[in-house]
Amino acid sequence: MSTLSLGLTRDSAVDRDEAGPLRDRRELFLIPEGTIYLDGNSLGALPRAVPARLTEAVSEEWGRGLISSWNSADWINLSRRVGAKIGPIIGVAGADVHVGDSTSVALFKTMVAACRMRPERRAIVLESSTFPTDGYIAAGVARLLGLEVRWCDSADPSASLDEDVALLLLTHVDFRTGAMFDMGALTRAAHGCGALMLWDLCHSAGAVPVELTEHDVDFAVGCSYKYLNGGPGSPAYVYVAPKHQAGLDQPITGWMGHARPFDMDRDYAPVEGVARMGSGTPPVLALTALDAALDVFGGIDHATLRMASLSLTDYFIDLVDARLGADFEVVTPRDSARRGSQVSLRHEQAYGVVQALIERGVVGDFRTPDLARFGFAPLFVTHVDVYDAVDHLVSVMEHEEFARPSYATRNLVT
Amino acid sequence: MSTLSLGLTRDSAVDRDEAGPLRDRRELFLIPEGTIYLDGNSLGALPRAVPARLTEAVSEEWGRGLISSWNSADWINLSRRVGAKIGPIIGVAGADVHVGDSTSVALFKTMVAACRMRPERRAIVLESSTFPTDGYIAAGVARLLGLEVRWCDSADPSASLDEDVALLLLTHVDFRTGAMFDMGALTRAAHGCGALMLWDLCHSAGAVPVELTEHDVDFAVGCSYKYLNGGPGSPAYVYVAPKHQAGLDQPITGWMGHARPFDMDRDYAPVEGVARMGSGTPPVLALTALDAALDVFGGIDHATLRMASLSLTDYFIDLVDARLGADFEVVTPRDSARRGSQVSLRHEQAYGVVQALIERGVVGDFRTPDLARFGFAPLFVTHVDVYDAVDHLVSVMEHEEFARPSYATRNLVT
Repeated sequence: MSTLSLGLTRDSAVDRDEAGPLRDRRELFLIPEGTIYLDGNSLGALPRAVPARLTEAVSEEWGRGLISSWNSADWINLSRRVGAKIGPIIGVAGADVHVGDSTSVALFKTMVAACRMRPERRAIVLESSTFPTDGYIAAGVARLLGLEVRWCDSADPSASLDEDVALLLLTHVDFRTGAMFDMGALTRAAHGCGALMLWDLCHSAGAVPVELTEHDVDFAVGCSYKYLNGGPGSPAYVYVAPKHQAGLDQPITGWMGHARPFDMDRDYAPVEGVARMGSGTPPVLALTALDAALDVFGGIDHATLRMASLSLTDYFIDLVDARLGADFEVVTPRDSARRGSQVSLRHEQAYGVVQALIERGVVGDFRTPDLARFGFAPLFVTHVDVYDAVDHLVSVMEHEEFARPSYATRNLVT
Repeated sequence: MSTLSLGLTRDSAVDRDEAGPLRDRRELFLIPEGTIYLDGNSLGALPRAVPARLTEAVSEEWGRGLISSWNSADWINLSRRVGAKIGPIIGVAGADVHVGDSTSVALFKTMVAACRMRPERRAIVLESSTFPTDGYIAAGVARLLGLEVRWCDSADPSASLDEDVALLLLTHVDFRTGAMFDMGALTRAAHGCGALMLWDLCHSAGAVPVELTEHDVDFAVGCSYKYLNGGPGSPAYVYVAPKHQAGLDQPITGWMGHARPFDMDRDYAPVEGVARMGSGTPPVLALTALDAALDVFGGIDHATLRMASLSLTDYFIDLVDARLGADFEVVTPRDSARRGSQVSLRHEQAYGVVQALIERGVVGDFRTPDLARFGFAPLFVTHVDVYDAVDHLVSVMEHEEFARPSYATRNLVT
């Protein structure tokens, strides 16, 4: 069957974009001319509203308002305001989301707090293919609390659960393969053996629906610089189920988690609610950028987001199958129920392939040892982007551009 | 003796400013017209270079460079570059300074790492009048590691040291009184009993000389949004003495402290040097603002900084003594060797006094229960500011402006 008969023409891509439910959103981003950006799963693009808002925060709030802006610009509640915007994206009340710290620090605090709720249990379970920082942090927490890290098989995490497990930590979407776990089934499995469930949403929230409340999830942590477009190194968020907040006992008991920080009492007394996840002074400028960035999600329901995401990844897979099927193995699940919003292609020379595409203005990334990874942020990636990216990929393969000598040395930073 | 004969006229203030060794620095800041800003010890003023630099980072590096800026804009080494600028301010090599996280998180990591170096010892010693987050974090660390927090008397911290002490944590300058500890003597006392020394530099670095190497200090943590002018909630820094870096074992073992983060190995292996204090992805926008802000310190030697600071605090104390001696108790040490760069005045109605001054454009702050606190950031506060501030304070007292009914309810956020 030809690509024409499959509806895989560039014209059909234009049609799909014009009919897309999120077609008005791309205008909210500043995407460089000539760039097809398929790396929003690593660093989100710049929302148009951010530069002006940040300039205002710097020049007016900090520069003119100075210390008074803690009150007059309400910096003191900025984390709460940002949490209120993240809540709907992950299916919870905004009041149950805390924002601040890096993802690693947020994972640390949440894991310690969770394990303290199951003091008689000795194991933290997570997949060995998880994003590395999750495993590193878990190992650090385990050592600190005298626990054991138990590596599970991502094909069946439930098989590693038993009554000694305090916490199951899973990344909702695998950063290498783009495979998505069944959040409901695995949360039930954890609860079934009395364990608590912590989801890492770094590679899912903002691109696929996340329904923490519906699935009775205990804890979640996510970064805000990928699909949430908060900017490089923007602060992470933590969700704590309301039922766990009163007993929440996190280890970095800084003044911003205190019930009355400005009383300057000698002894610590945690504030009510998720705000007790706070430690230090909130990162105001970074939170301001994130606050402005999150407005691009206003009014998008989860079903629409999912439809837009799957339309892009389905289209990409179909085009690769039709035009490049002999070159690449599609590593990402073809079953859309098990797919996040990225597609990874396996090729022995994946590093060179990605570099050659970048030279052509098509930005994906490489993950060791042999994956070319493409993220489809549904708010700013179009079907025409997808069509053109595959067109470039076809050229890269035809001309063996991946084999340039300069690609022999890998630069792994991205 | 009249204020005239003491050289306490406004003309003499102008003369002092014209002769001051840092007279060229104020121009590097954007201070709002009509504001006398004596709260740089709480939130530093905006360095003129920051807005443009941050705009460039947002619009060019993030917006246009996107993910490639980790390499092309060298975001990956931004923390190191900022550390290199902080090093000279605290008397150490920049390569021994890590920047990232909040002060509270940095204190947590450093305290755990330090206590792990003295596993046979059971106590952390700190003053009960320390900045509250230090005590809260210490209590959290003590609980986690099975240690004891021992509160010492700030009049003689050494008296609380013995062979069971793992770590002595002191704030170099007291945030309430402005009193400064003798860093050399107390570090020697800690070492004399085999303990490690951690200095909190939040209220000193950038306004008074800090000589960590000279005094053989083991660890230091400081915030960057006070005298370092990094902006609201800007990242904290950590110093680790070179001799401790190889054995450094901090608890939040995130991927940015890994020897090869982009290998994505399953198991943690710390990088060499102070970079192993890293945990999560660095806060690029906040670090960029701080990076630009720190340039105001270029070329200032410690003796000059100290001379400029003491000239301001001496002048303020002299003016208060001469014009307001009956109204206020100067809580800050008159002995300049024991004074930081702030002066605190005690008055029963200190809250109202501070609010009345703010109405007049003189920004200091209040610390419970009865202190009016004035910070003298030597790079942007002038003697004329000091003179005029005292002039306003004289008027506030003469007209009893502090007694306005609206000041009866305290807003404690600042």
